[in-house]
Amino acid sequence: MSGRYRPGGRILLTEPLSPEGLEAALRRIGTERYHANHPFHHLLHTGALNKGQVQAWALNRYYYQSRIPMKDTALMSRVSDPDLRREWVRRVADHDGRGNEAGGVARWLMLTDGLDLPRDYVMSEEAILPATKFACDAYVRYVREESLLQAVASSLTELFSPALISQRVAGMLRNYDFVSEETLSYFEARLTQAPEDSAFALAYCKREATSAAAQQDVLDALYFKTDMLWAQLDALYHAYVAPGHVPPGAFVPDDHVGARD
Amino acid sequence: MSGRYRPGGRILLTEPLSPEGLEAALRRIGTERYHANHPFHHLLHTGALNKGQVQAWALNRYYYQSRIPMKDTALMSRVSDPDLRREWVRRVADHDGRGNEAGGVARWLMLTDGLDLPRDYVMSEEAILPATKFACDAYVRYVREESLLQAVASSLTELFSPALISQRVAGMLRNYDFVSEETLSYFEARLTQAPEDSAFALAYCKREATSAAAQQDVLDALYFKTDMLWAQLDALYHAYVAPGHVPPGAFVPDDHVGARD
Repeated sequence: MSGRYRPGGRILLTEPLSPEGLEAALRRIGTERYHANHPFHHLLHTGALNKGQVQAWALNRYYYQSRIPMKDTALMSRVSDPDLRREWVRRVADHDGRGNEAGGVARWLMLTDGLDLPRDYVMSEEAILPATKFACDAYVRYVREESLLQAVASSLTELFSPALISQRVAGMLRNYDFVSEETLSYFEARLTQAPEDSAFALAYCKREATSAAAQQDVLDALYFKTDMLWAQLDALYHAYVAPGHVPPGAFVPDDHVGARD
Repeated sequence: MSGRYRPGGRILLTEPLSPEGLEAALRRIGTERYHANHPFHHLLHTGALNKGQVQAWALNRYYYQSRIPMKDTALMSRVSDPDLRREWVRRVADHDGRGNEAGGVARWLMLTDGLDLPRDYVMSEEAILPATKFACDAYVRYVREESLLQAVASSLTELFSPALISQRVAGMLRNYDFVSEETLSYFEARLTQAPEDSAFALAYCKREATSAAAQQDVLDALYFKTDMLWAQLDALYHAYVAPGHVPPGAFVPDDHVGARD
């Protein structure tokens, strides 16, 4: 790879990469920074969390799920090419549903239902961690305000999600009696949707980003996205695992054992 | 007070308050939610942190300081009244400086200098916690996008800052040999600036917000602001105190003792 490391370990390109070199750089960022590596996920998948901690994860991730179609339509609102919009609108339907088929947001609510979180409480967004909102709102705004190339590239964490999802579903079904194949059905749908989405976005970035500057934008978009996913799990860990400091006003599980202040 | 508690303990107004009642409600929010109550501040002020943890705090708060004049000019860009802009521009000069007098941002850099953080490293913003950026950027955007009344009201945490600052300066000078009155001079200036600023903003809100809906906006702006301040300290605590999980790419102090991932 042509490039050197920035302070903070980021790749900084000094000359353009081949399309294959760009893909390799993106995959390296995924290996190093995707939230599959986050300690909270290790706890979630190995059965180390109690039900209240899993509730907190599902509740906060509802906010993330709810913002995905908002960022996707923000992206579409910037596109003048009908073919690109036709491709991208599939993502919106995946999350909002088609006909009688439940979409991703509705499937996520099946999970929060299954975890005994009242639906109106979840959808009110009142008890979400502020840090979750700041991160997810930053994502919607990133897609709205940065270049279209960066907006597309920020979706590329989906390159890495199928492996994480497979590990999660197997681990959660094995370790928790309060989830089931039915309540985890969101993830089953993502196993076919995510590869289609990421294949399109990766081909788009490899085709459109040919200068070092444009390729740097693509890498930076993925850094941004991995940071915003990571920050959500940091906030969950702090509030609900250790030291268990729930910020004022946020969800406090019935079985919460951390300090309240 | 006329109102009931929301889920999450927020005040929800059902009828208008008197101006004095509005002020009392704002002060109650400050008592309950201002980051003077945050465990990280207790550690900072009592000498329980090591130098690297104080560096992390100063580094990340540099990002917050740097965004304050951006939010203040965003606010001014929405104002058609020259008198209100004349009042508000004083805040910008307080942070950017006047003539040969250093402003708040430059004074903050005297603190990071005194803590042996290279100035170009601080100003590059490369090693700031992503959660700090998400929170501070949310504040700039809040002031840009919400109502002018909410933008003004979101500054009202300054009602509570003099007491916190006095406690901080006394505590830090007593407990740390790596700070001095000179490197903490930012705070001395704020002890006279903050009360002038908050007196103006409070009078503005008491005068302009007379309906229950407008008063609710004022309270919600202060909830937003206390949440964004609190989230910054949560992120510092998680990364640098316990468990000490520094997110990928962020500042790692020389004396960091926590786990690295």
